[in-house]
Formats: sequence, structure tokens, C-alpha cells
Amino acid sequence: MTFSVAVAGASGYAGGELLRILASHPDFEVRTVTAHQNAGQPLIAHQPHLRSLAHLTLVETSASNLAGHDVVFLALPHGKSGEIAAQLPDETLVVDCGADHRLESEESWAAFYGGDYFGAWAYGVPELPVVSANSTATGTANSTGGKQRDALVGATRIAAPGCNASAVSLALAPGIAAGLIDDEDIVAVLAVGPSGAGKSLKTMYLASEILGSANPYAVGGTHRHIPEIQQNLRKAGAAHPTVSFTPVLVPMSRGILATSTARLKPGVTPEQVQQTWERAYADEPFVHVLPHGSVPRTADVLGANTALIGVAVDEAAGRVIAVLALDNLYKGTAGAAIQSANIALGLDETAGLNVNGVAP
Amino acid sequence: MTFSVAVAGASGYAGGELLRILASHPDFEVRTVTAHQNAGQPLIAHQPHLRSLAHLTLVETSASNLAGHDVVFLALPHGKSGEIAAQLPDETLVVDCGADHRLESEESWAAFYGGDYFGAWAYGVPELPVVSANSTATGTANSTGGKQRDALVGATRIAAPGCNASAVSLALAPGIAAGLIDDEDIVAVLAVGPSGAGKSLKTMYLASEILGSANPYAVGGTHRHIPEIQQNLRKAGAAHPTVSFTPVLVPMSRGILATSTARLKPGVTPEQVQQTWERAYADEPFVHVLPHGSVPRTADVLGANTALIGVAVDEAAGRVIAVLALDNLYKGTAGAAIQSANIALGLDETAGLNVNGVAP
Amino acid sequence: MTFSVAVAGASGYAGGELLRILASHPDFEVRTVTAHQNAGQPLIAHQPHLRSLAHLTLVETSASNLAGHDVVFLALPHGKSGEIAAQLPDETLVVDCGADHRLESEESWAAFYGGDYFGAWAYGVPELPVVSANSTATGTANSTGGKQRDALVGATRIAAPGCNASAVSLALAPGIAAGLIDDEDIVAVLAVGPSGAGKSLKTMYLASEILGSANPYAVGGTHRHIPEIQQNLRKAGAAHPTVSFTPVLVPMSRGILATSTARLKPGVTPEQVQQTWERAYADEPFVHVLPHGSVPRTADVLGANTALIGVAVDEAAGRVIAVLALDNLYKGTAGAAIQSANIALGLDETAGLNVNGVAP
Amino acid sequence: MTFSVAVAGASGYAGGELLRILASHPDFEVRTVTAHQNAGQPLIAHQPHLRSLAHLTLVETSASNLAGHDVVFLALPHGKSGEIAAQLPDETLVVDCGADHRLESEESWAAFYGGDYFGAWAYGVPELPVVSANSTATGTANSTGGKQRDALVGATRIAAPGCNASAVSLALAPGIAAGLIDDEDIVAVLAVGPSGAGKSLKTMYLASEILGSANPYAVGGTHRHIPEIQQNLRKAGAAHPTVSFTPVLVPMSRGILATSTARLKPGVTPEQVQQTWERAYADEPFVHVLPHGSVPRTADVLGANTALIGVAVDEAAGRVIAVLALDNLYKGTAGAAIQSANIALGLDETAGLNVNGVAP
Repeated sequence: MTFSVAVAGASGYAGGELLRILASHPDFEVRTVTAHQNAGQPLIAHQPHLRSLAHLTLVETSASNLAGHDVVFLALPHGKSGEIAAQLPDETLVVDCGADHRLESEESWAAFYGGDYFGAWAYGVPELPVVSANSTATGTANSTGGKQRDALVGATRIAAPGCNASAVSLALAPGIAAGLIDDEDIVAVLAVGPSGAGKSLKTMYLASEILGSANPYAVGGTHRHIPEIQQNLRKAGAAHPTVSFTPVLVPMSRGILATSTARLKPGVTPEQVQQTWERAYADEPFVHVLPHGSVPRTADVLGANTALIGVAVDEAAGRVIAVLALDNLYKGTAGAAIQSANIALGLDETAGLNVNGVAP
Repeated sequence: MTFSVAVAGASGYAGGELLRILASHPDFEVRTVTAHQNAGQPLIAHQPHLRSLAHLTLVETSASNLAGHDVVFLALPHGKSGEIAAQLPDETLVVDCGADHRLESEESWAAFYGGDYFGAWAYGVPELPVVSANSTATGTANSTGGKQRDALVGATRIAAPGCNASAVSLALAPGIAAGLIDDEDIVAVLAVGPSGAGKSLKTMYLASEILGSANPYAVGGTHRHIPEIQQNLRKAGAAHPTVSFTPVLVPMSRGILATSTARLKPGVTPEQVQQTWERAYADEPFVHVLPHGSVPRTADVLGANTALIGVAVDEAAGRVIAVLALDNLYKGTAGAAIQSANIALGLDETAGLNVNGVAP
Repeated sequence: MTFSVAVAGASGYAGGELLRILASHPDFEVRTVTAHQNAGQPLIAHQPHLRSLAHLTLVETSASNLAGHDVVFLALPHGKSGEIAAQLPDETLVVDCGADHRLESEESWAAFYGGDYFGAWAYGVPELPVVSANSTATGTANSTGGKQRDALVGATRIAAPGCNASAVSLALAPGIAAGLIDDEDIVAVLAVGPSGAGKSLKTMYLASEILGSANPYAVGGTHRHIPEIQQNLRKAGAAHPTVSFTPVLVPMSRGILATSTARLKPGVTPEQVQQTWERAYADEPFVHVLPHGSVPRTADVLGANTALIGVAVDEAAGRVIAVLALDNLYKGTAGAAIQSANIALGLDETAGLNVNGVAP
Repeated sequence: MTFSVAVAGASGYAGGELLRILASHPDFEVRTVTAHQNAGQPLIAHQPHLRSLAHLTLVETSASNLAGHDVVFLALPHGKSGEIAAQLPDETLVVDCGADHRLESEESWAAFYGGDYFGAWAYGVPELPVVSANSTATGTANSTGGKQRDALVGATRIAAPGCNASAVSLALAPGIAAGLIDDEDIVAVLAVGPSGAGKSLKTMYLASEILGSANPYAVGGTHRHIPEIQQNLRKAGAAHPTVSFTPVLVPMSRGILATSTARLKPGVTPEQVQQTWERAYADEPFVHVLPHGSVPRTADVLGANTALIGVAVDEAAGRVIAVLALDNLYKGTAGAAIQSANIALGLDETAGLNVNGVAP
């Protein structure tokens, strides 16, 4: 069976990546692509790399244009998804790549986003561990706990994750779930490419501003992915996670290199750390822990649904350093959305996503 | 009076930057440039941007070629400076851009470098605060303490700093000196350009490996600048500083964007933090604290002797985040070396260094 | 039927791209990967993006290790392929990504390469037109002529093209074949990424040398792809093609943007030009002529087997300007090699190659 | 004597570069900086690298704000300079970095720009040769001819050049002036950085579009610098110059690498070419011809007023290839403007401009 698909926001970067993956997905067929300003134009004018979809024309992003498909992917600015999704049939699988339905806490929503709160949907980082409260209390390693993917099976409304939130959450969740690291005083600094900001016409995203420079932003605890990370870590067993989070724009179009560190609990050995991280993702097709001593680069995951993690213990500093690389548009956004859709629809979780990265 | 100058290691990146600055320095005249493999070739063949020095020819790096100058700058691989410097006259001002004479602790040297220990020289980050042990104990802000520049006056042997060490030390020293932040559990993550590695012919520094990618290295507490940071912070009043330090190579030829964080002591306000940092560098010509809410980019300091700091308090995370941008070759290496030489020789500290950055 | 495959030179960039494509090719199975210096190491240590081939170990590049496969791809330095290929069984399909077997003229070989001449093999730019001498003489547009792919059917020895040669040849061959442009006085200038040079450890390929700079090389008619272009254009009907060819290294890891210009013959209209170019590649799955007024970017073809051409007439200058973008590692090298192998073996020409590009 | 200076368009890239150079110019003092949208804001908010000018505030761009200075530099969008300049006192030296006053031919203006024609001013590429018509007719090398700088002495209205026009004109003018090359059928292809487009908020200049890609534009004879090149070459002795001109945006913030080629006249030797080019610029402080076999990179001239030329003869192709590197913002725009102002005011032509480039 082939599922019919519509993609809203198809002229942007996230929309383009969704289409790129969907174009070679065995179970999906893209029927409709929508945009707002660019409606009426051929898709290929805005996504010249998508040769196999050259026959598609952008239509206006509206509930009526999106209705009537088995699956709708929304790659819209914040606040737009909520409105549109509310008008789509309940039985349609809607996957939102925006932030509108990620946060379960209305309070966090108010603090970091503001405006109407749209409620939380099933959340799309399938590999994240879920640990029940009492197992955490005892601090025991929980290798038998569930994963976030369990909540995606059969879902019809899915919130794809924030790319930075995926990176930090995946990097540290194993240690949280196993009780090896403190959930307080997490520090994460991310080197990120500008494609995460979409095609926003702001001076700060001009090539002349980005080339040859490293540009931090949202410094001091204001980035909107912070509550999403906390939510993920709480599900992994953290009681009161605090995260210092600093993103730095660097001159690469795609990619996130997240350096996430947390205090090691007393008596935990480097071997335990390596083993726990490896075990946490041992059966995962898309998240891999590298051998001791290896670290990933974003070049290793560009164009793939892969997250690579290198974990090290700095005994002098008393910290675990988990370095994670992912492609913000692929595993961070579009790949995660499609992976979640695969799960929701009962398809092979890896369908359409089993590709190697592009390097150099 | 004009001082005669020799530069050893003149075909490398640090040597080139020394020469670039010296070429327009009012008090110095470059007479001799040395190299090893490239000896006998015109300087311009290896530094084609240094048009004004096109008349110079590289000679072999040897004590005899370097002797007879008022000032000798060494930009040599680790372990080479120690040997050469020992053979130069005591009255010659020798400024070493390598690591051989930075560390005061032989134990740290053994742990991070190994091999012969050459002893510590006067150290070249003039702006770093120096706080006596008892003033720290009381935790009082020390606005009357000294600076590291005091030790440079009249020195004839100077160790220029490690570029990453300068970045993290300058970023956090104000809070340490004033007792506003914990010296334990510092976390620093740096986006750095590949020129810091010199012209090393290693696969990891090839353009195809660096372009479009963020590549961490020395993860887990092994980077050689860690003991240098600790030494600086101890002089600023830290008792037992611990630093988790992770550098990430990004695709810009020059620049360091250091995100350094430390736990805020209880009761310290954001206003206190901003004021303390501003006051620490208020009289400094080359280190500037940006207004509250601003953060620096490496593009703002490229080609300048400037370090720019943006400081923020994340109250939820309980941390100060100090983001510092500097040009690794200029303020991080060659500019620092020349600034120290200016001080040592009794010149205007800013002579030859008062330039704006190059952007975009 | 699945063909067993060996790839020689598997730790380099061209070898990596071959493996990346082969890993998802429906008809090939990679059994053996060879290297020289890196023999004995896991493939993934040198190609960390090729997760699906993590089980492979590099063995020594030798005829004995390569023999016994249905297909052998050679991605070796110049001069190495000739030796190895001579020792492989005649019935094995050998596709050489090096230059050893591209040139039919021993004189050209001597002038541009020198050393032993290995003779020409079937050549791997399938889409290039082949025009017989007398049809050219009359200057008539030849839409019924053959293509170079004809010579690949059933071949057991194939020379994959030079990436720059493919770019210029594909860009101008339609006009040559149709007699619309002069074959004398062609001028081509190419912006190229450094991955074309492989993992050569030379200072000129260091990231610090490439970042932020445009670096010409082989200026003045010395580039080795010139005789290959001439050979292709002769087959397309040119009598005595002359080509001024200048490559410029720019800071992108992959990609060739070739600007190729030729004098327009008197009386030829812009409409004729557009139509002729479109018709030349109308049935081609991988070479596309963009609509009038559009030009391609290398970003549009990165990671794809696609060549995009934009053609314009500058009436004041009396020249056709054909701008072509291709990915040097994919369509320029590995994709071309596999496309040729598909043809040789009687597979669907597009098998394993039908992917959209990766952007941004 | 110090000349008071105003800079209009001070928040843009060209304005920033003017200010950067002026800040260390011994004879100029920047008193006023103007902008339109950003009027009222501190200069440093838009030019954070210009620390020494942190005391300046942007005021509205108007004739009244600009009047009353000895020198006014205009770095405004096309069409704005004409209006403003007309309102400034005749005795004020006005240097326009825009295109409004470059073209002497109203017909060319109409064909390439359109709208009101403002008339031509003295033109700011001082090094370009000027050859009288009859000397050209005889085709003799003219080493005693004048230079364009002659027209700048005492001028009060100066049109700074187009950066691309400077590059191509300087590269080929020696051969034109000496009668060694044909003026017909010139072909120039330029790798250019995006800063030449200023801070225009267009999708094509976003970092995600530029990073990792080479993007041609204005293909087919439509670029506005073409008539400016023709005008320069006519002054150098060309009768009817035709130029095929293609710019390609590449991922470097600054820089132009122009590959300009022209047909060599029969019998001209490579030695003649090298000598003629060298002689043409032998006394020039800012334009240098590299030794035979050397080619320049944009990295060699970044941040400097230098143009470097490498010239080669391709005997097989019958063409001279002149490769020229310059910094589009410095020698291409702001440096040229200030150099011309130096000449106009009778200052040392090199005042404030004698700096080495910044590399790597």
C-alpha cells in the first residue's frame, strides 16, 4: 500500500528535505506541495535539486489543499501549524516539524514561546529512553525501560523534534536513565549551521555575516529548545534537570555538533559510561555510540538519518562529555518526522531512511 | 630608537602574523627571518600576502642566525624553542610563541606535554588579573589587584600564551577574581579555526575534511591548554580550578569563539556580573566587555588584537556564560607576543597593535 | 543476479563515493575493499559516513585481492591502474577512475602525463554525442548521431572520465555536434572544490589555504584534462578544437561550476542554441538543459549523478556561454563509473543512480 | 592638515571598509557617518569590528548632514548618489562608490542601468594606462603613455570603480596598450564573494545558499560592469573591445579572482607578454605582476589595496590568460576611492593604504 502525502511549507529547507527523503521512500507518494508566498510556482524553482519532483507545482497552504491525503507533513513557521492541523481530519496522520505541539507544559510554552498553547502531541525522537519515576529514585541502571517510540505507534498527531533538542537529549539520556550523571548542571554548547533558521531574510543569516565567523546567539538560557530537552530528560528519569545551552552558528550549511556535559556521579568508571551509552542504543538503527576514543564530525552524518555519539570521561573535571553529530535537516527534522510516521503507520521504522551520509 | 628583530619559524602561520604586525610597527624592524625546510627561499614564496617584506630571504633557524638582534620571536614547534632560546644572549628579549615556557608546574608539563621541562618564563596575557591568596579567601571583589602585565616589565624571556587558554582565562578571570563564580566545574567549549594547527600536513586539516563540517578533538580533558587555564585562574584567585575543555574545529581559517561557563555563587545578581566584568577590563585597550545583551562574533575581531566578551547569567541553570571572541593568530598569538614585547621594552603597550578588525 | 564488486583505493574520496553509491545499488554487492597505506584497518576508520559498510576491512591493493570479482573499480593514483589492470582476467569488468586509459593519442599522453602509455579503453561519459566526420563537414545539426554510450555496451575495460573534462565536454558538445559554434578558441574557467585532488597531503590543500580564498592552478594550458576535452569534442565533430582551460579552487568540498564559452557561428540565433542544447540531452536521465534564463549552481547537483546546463548567447560578445554544474565525485567520477558499468553489464543505465541532490 | 570626512551609507559593507581604512589614515578624520534605515543608532551596532569609531552615531543620509566636510564618500545604492551629490558644494571632494557616475556613454548607461543618467566623473582606477588613438593604430607598445590617475589630480567629483571592472581592466590593459592582444573576443570569468552585493536581503545571498556552492549569475552579457570594462580598455587603446563576462559567486566573504583571457596577436612571445605586463605596472605601489609561473590567490590580497596579476601564454590555445586577485571591498571599492581622494587632494597616493594583506 502506498500512502498519499502532502507537504506544507514545501519551498523551505525543512520542506525540501522532507520531499527529498519522501521522493525515494517506498511507501509514500507525494501528491501535494504547498507554500504561501510561492504558491503557483513550480516546486523546482525553489528546490532545484529535487529533479524527480519537477512535475509538482506549489499550491496555497490551506486545510482544503492538505485534506484528503493519508499523511500531511507540516514545515511551517511557529504558530501556523496549530491552526492548520486543527482543521485536518482526525484520521489523517499529521506530522508537525514546527514547535507548536512539542511541549507538554503550558507553563514552559508560555515562558519560551508565548501566545496560544496548542497542546502536546506524540513526540518524535523514537530512540530516547523512558524511565518510570520509581526506577529513577533507586538510581539503578534501567536497561529494560521503554523508548519514546512506544508512544508513536498508531499516533495520528506527531510533533517532530527540535533539532538541537534531539542532539542534547540523545547525547545525555543514557547517563540520566542509568543514573550515572547528575541531571543538574548540564552544560551544552552546539556548533550549528544556518539552515536550521530556514530561509529567513535577516542580516545575520547573510553569507557575508556567516562566512569565516562563529556567531553565538540566544546566550544565557533563552533558546526555545531548552524546555524540550528538559522534558526529554525528565522522561528519561531526571528529577529537576537544568541545562545551560548555547548555540553557535558556524559556516557550514547543515549540521549540529553538540558538546553536552554533565557531572559524573561519584564512583562511576569510564568503562561503565562507555558500556551504558553503547547499551542504550545497541539495537538502534540510527543512533550509534562510537568506540572509546572516537568522536564524530558533522561530515560523518550529512545527508543521513544518523546520530553519532562519542562519549568521554574527564576525571579531573568530574564530567562526562558526550559529543553528538547529526544533520539538523535530516535526523534533526525531516528524517525524524518520517521515521515517526513510519512507526505510526506500522511500516518498517527504517523505510526510506537507510542511507549513508555524503562525505566529503 | 628602533629595535632590530628576528623571527624564527617565519614560513608558518604564526610567524606570518608576527611579520605582518611587525611590518607596520613603529619601533621594530625585521632584519632576519628563519625557517628550517624552507631556508634559502624568498619569504614571499611562503607568505605571499606580505608584500612589504618581499626583500627578505629565509635563513636556517639557528642560534647564530638569531643572535645579534634586540628582539627574537620564536614561532617554532613544541620542544624547539627551549633549545634555541638557551643559546641566545641573556640580554636579548626572546618571546616564544610555543608552549615550552608557559607552565610553572613541572608536574603539569609532564602530564600534558612530557619530555624535557624548560621552566616557566614571564607569561603574555597582560590583561589577566592577579589576586593574592588572602583577598580571595574573603571573596571580596578585588578591583585594586594587579594584572599579569606587571611581570612583563623588563622581562627578557616571555612565553606568549596559548590562544585557547587566553580565550577561556580572559573570559572567566573577572568572576574568579571577584569571587562571583565557582572555580570548580568550569565548562568551556570552543569553536576554533584550523590555522591554530599551523601548516601541519595531516589529513584532518585538509580542506575537504574541514569544509562543511564541525570536528571536535582532544575530547575528555586531554587538551594541552587546560593546565595553562588553571594556572591563569589560580593567579586570579581560584583555589582548585577544574575545567572541562572541548575544542571544535569549524570551517573558518582564523578565530576562536569560546563559550565558557561557571556556576554562579548564591545571591550574585546579573547586574553584579555585568558590572564586575566591565570593571575588570575597563582600562584595557584590547579587551572589551560588550553591553548587556550583546555577544561577540569572531568576525568582529578578525585581524585585530581585540578580545570581545559578552557575559550573561542563566538564572535557571545557575551559571554565568561568558562568550569570548578573539583572533587566534592575532590576539591569541602574534599580537599577544608583540604586546608583551612592547611592555617588556617600555614602549607604548599598544604600539603597532591599534587596528580595527577586518569584516566582513 | 547480483554482481560481486571490489573497490581499489577505498580509503580515498573517489573510492568512498564509489562505495557510497554501490552500497545502495540493487545489482552490486561490495565484497572487497583495498588500500595501500591503510590496509589492515577497518573501512569505517577512513570512511566514517559509510555506516552500512562498517563490516568491511581494507586489504592490500593487489591483483590477487581484486581478482575473483565480477566488477573491479579502481580509484588509484595515476600510473597504478595500468599495472593492476593488466593482471586482472579479461572477462572481469574493470572500471578505472584514474587517467591511465582515457587518451587515445599516445602523443597527447606523452605531452600531458608522460611515462608508460597504457592505451585507451572505452570511455565513460555516455551522454556525449558522436558525430561522423562527413556529417560535420556539412555543418548540419546532427540529431540522429550516436552517443559515446554505444561503445560501452559489453565493454570489459572502461576508463571513467576526468571530472573537469566531463563538465566542459558536456557543456559544449551539443553546439559542436550541431555545427553552431567554432571549435577553435574555446575558453573554459572552472570553479572546483578540493576533493578532486583526493587526500593529497600538500600545503595547498590545507583548510587554512582554501578557506576564504579562490586559488587558480595549472594556468596557461597545462591541465591534464585538456587533451581529454579535445578528444571528446573531436568525436562530437570538432576538427581542431583549441581550449583555454583554467581551474580555480574555491572553498567548497565538492562541485564543479564550469563556465565554457565558444564563438557563435554567424547567423545562429539564441533560440537555435537553446533548442539544440535541449534536444541534445532531451532523452538523457542525468544531463538536463535548464529553461532559457536559468543557470545551475553546484548546490543543485551535490550528491547526485546530475549535470545541469544553462546556456546563454551573448550577442555583443559573439559567444555562447554554457554553464554546467556537476558533483566532481558523483557524476564527475564515481557515478560516471557506475553508470558505465551499468551499461556495460546490460543493467538499467540508471540503476543505483536515481537520487536527488542534497541541498542546502 | 587634516581633512574632515563624511561617509554616507556607513552601515553597509563598502561603507564599513571606507571607515576601516579612514580610521587609520593620517590625513583624514571621520566626523560624520550617515545611513537611512539605521539612522539614530550607534555605528558600532552595525560595524562591530570598528572599535576605534565606537563614538560615532549614524545620522540620516542627507545633503545637509554631508555638507560642511572637506571630503564626502558615498556608499549608496545605485541612483541615490546622483541626487545627493548634486546638492553638495562644488568645492567638496565627493567620491562616489556607486555606479552613477562611471559611464561616459549615455547609451551604455541606458542599456545597462536605465533611468536618469548623471554624467561621468573622473574615474578611480589610477593605474590603468591611457593610450592615444593614433599610437594604438600603429600597434606599437606604448610605455610612455599616461595613466588614468592624471585625470584625478585636483578633481572634486570622482567615481570609484566597479570592483569586477577594475579586476578585468587591470588584468588586460597592458596587453591592449602594447598591442599584443586582440581587443575583440575577450573572455572573463570571475570567482567573487558575496560581500560585493552588500547587505541585500535576498534569498540568493543567504549563507545556506552560498555555503558549499558555486553560483553563477548575470550570464550572457548582462552584467553592469561590462560597459565599464570596455570604457577602460578603449582608453588603453582598444578600438572595439568585446567582453564575455561571467561572475560566479563562491563561498568566501571577500575577494575577486578574475580569469581574463584574450587572443594573442601573431608572433608575440611569452617573454614579451611577461615583460610588457611587468613594465606596465613596474612603478605602481599597488598593482604587481608576479614572476613567470606564479599565480595569485585572493587570500594574498585580502584586506589590502593590492592587485596581484599572474600572466601566462597558452600557445596551443593562442591566448593570454591573465589571472588577477583583488579584495573587492578594499582595492575594488574603498581603497580605490581613498587612493583617488589622495591623488585628488595632492596627498601621497599611498597614504593610509600601505598595508599587507591578512592571511590565512
